Amino acid sequence: MKSIAPFTAQFNAFLETKTQSRKPKSLYDPVNYILNLGGKRIRPALVMMSADLFDIPVESSLDAALAIEVFHNFSLVHDDIMDDAPKRRHQDTVHEKWDINTGILSGDAMLIWAYQCFEVYTTDQFYKLIKLFSKTAQEVCIGQQYDMDFELQPQVKIEAYLEMIRLKTAVLVACAFQMGGILAQTSEENQNQLYQFGENLGIAFQIQDDLLDAYGDPVSFGKQVGGDIIENKKTFLYLKTLELASENDFNQLQHLFTIQPANTTAKIDAVMQIYNRYNVKDEAAKQIQSYTQNALKSLSNLNIVEDKKAKLKLFAEELMQREV
Amino acid sequence: MKSIAPFTAQFNAFLETKTQSRKPKSLYDPVNYILNLGGKRIRPALVMMSADLFDIPVESSLDAALAIEVFHNFSLVHDDIMDDAPKRRHQDTVHEKWDINTGILSGDAMLIWAYQCFEVYTTDQFYKLIKLFSKTAQEVCIGQQYDMDFELQPQVKIEAYLEMIRLKTAVLVACAFQMGGILAQTSEENQNQLYQFGENLGIAFQIQDDLLDAYGDPVSFGKQVGGDIIENKKTFLYLKTLELASENDFNQLQHLFTIQPANTTAKIDAVMQIYNRYNVKDEAAKQIQSYTQNALKSLSNLNIVEDKKAKLKLFAEELMQREV
Repeated sequence: MKSIAPFTAQFNAFLETKTQSRKPKSLYDPVNYILNLGGKRIRPALVMMSADLFDIPVESSLDAALAIEVFHNFSLVHDDIMDDAPKRRHQDTVHEKWDINTGILSGDAMLIWAYQCFEVYTTDQFYKLIKLFSKTAQEVCIGQQYDMDFELQPQVKIEAYLEMIRLKTAVLVACAFQMGGILAQTSEENQNQLYQFGENLGIAFQIQDDLLDAYGDPVSFGKQVGGDIIENKKTFLYLKTLELASENDFNQLQHLFTIQPANTTAKIDAVMQIYNRYNVKDEAAKQIQSYTQNALKSLSNLNIVEDKKAKLKLFAEELMQREV
Repeated sequence: MKSIAPFTAQFNAFLETKTQSRKPKSLYDPVNYILNLGGKRIRPALVMMSADLFDIPVESSLDAALAIEVFHNFSLVHDDIMDDAPKRRHQDTVHEKWDINTGILSGDAMLIWAYQCFEVYTTDQFYKLIKLFSKTAQEVCIGQQYDMDFELQPQVKIEAYLEMIRLKTAVLVACAFQMGGILAQTSEENQNQLYQFGENLGIAFQIQDDLLDAYGDPVSFGKQVGGDIIENKKTFLYLKTLELASENDFNQLQHLFTIQPANTTAKIDAVMQIYNRYNVKDEAAKQIQSYTQNALKSLSNLNIVEDKKAKLKLFAEELMQREV
């Protein structure tokens, strides 16, 4: 994304200097491995972009950005164990390449390292950053727990689903934006607007993810369309359809999400037919639109010079127009 | 132990007020469960005892004490998964009572909660406490990694073993003592002496543990003597014997630590005969004595009124005379 490209480049250069050379290698090799699988670095870039809004040196936000990225990767390592996922970004997951114990312990070391990243700041900033960070980290855990709990429940209300993705995905985006504000020592009110901007955008982002998985352009999407359907993942599209469906479609869709046939194309087709019957594509688009509007409202409330807001607006638009 | 009994009682009352009532229960029930399995609460009591040395109100140390206890229990939950341990304090371990995913995620939530305990302190104390805490937590992870690495190595040098138990066990005891000093805002020099007192005592404690497992009084020990031998655990006694043994005894002992016979008594007898042949009981006692002496040296260097030191000395003596 153009709006954050300079920040991601600067962050990647910084990250390279932070490779863990500590011993034992059995603990830190997996840490370096997951951090070098090449994520999009959106979250750390948001910390930097947010700091830049207030004209403080972007360099001063790099350690907070690193904390966010290290935490994000910690959560990927532990979540991949819990989800029994063999692949991450087309490569072996940590517990697959090493083993589960290595994944657990390297993840723990990353969570602690994330906290250590804040040690470069003043005691006052340290306190504020870590308080926000801990609250966010707890919420991400709660979101992951809800996600796992949902797998065992036959039906999940849309409200509960939205709360789950808020916790599991959106609060970390919100935290990233607010951290820039903390570093710049902007007002509490501005910090709240930054947080809400990130939170709403984060929820919109996740619904967009659900939408692209089923309705994305197979060429630009870069991965198999219908992956969530194959894996019986309860997405916004699935849950919304259950809410709207006739008894017959309800039962058929629930059944389709219990099977794992060899012929995935037929299953995807059958699910998509039901989705289309209830226009859930439009329902999802409406929700994305609504959360994006909320984000833009927070942006307009933000007390900074107008041309700075343009950058955030561009980012929001890019995020919602993405096809990957 | 008499010396810390008032502190453990006060801590247990405080802990009761801190039961996690947050949702989801699937995440926090295991947290409450492990914290209520009834540990000895030695580590939190040490934070309180240390604060009390400097006559600051003991109540002000309770949250730091809680952080240490919550962290300790986090490490038990994750270690029990890694060690595939079904029981902890005669009860089911968390991953046994629930499942591995619950153990991983509840553990993560506990580690974050431990950090949150420090939020009651001033920003200056918060910074110092958390910097020490993070360093300690990283070292505990490294110690656990060494412990797992050692299981795959045929022979481990005594020095490497001592370094492992320093990291896995002793630094947390050291951290607990230093935290009392940080809260009391005593000199850096005093803080270092407190840390070293705890570190040396922690190493002595762990060797004592190894010794009691093989040579403890079966009645007062309260658990099966020889448990480490049955489980082929590489303890100080085992590694020291390998260092001293003839080729024949070396090979026999190594062999005995690869088998898991139904008749454990015969195996324990065979191992104990070899241990006795090399007087490793005395070797262990010598090491315990040496680390305890180092601890007492730090105590004598500590710049506080002498009658306060008597309490710490009593604790050190009780710890080394324990039979459990």
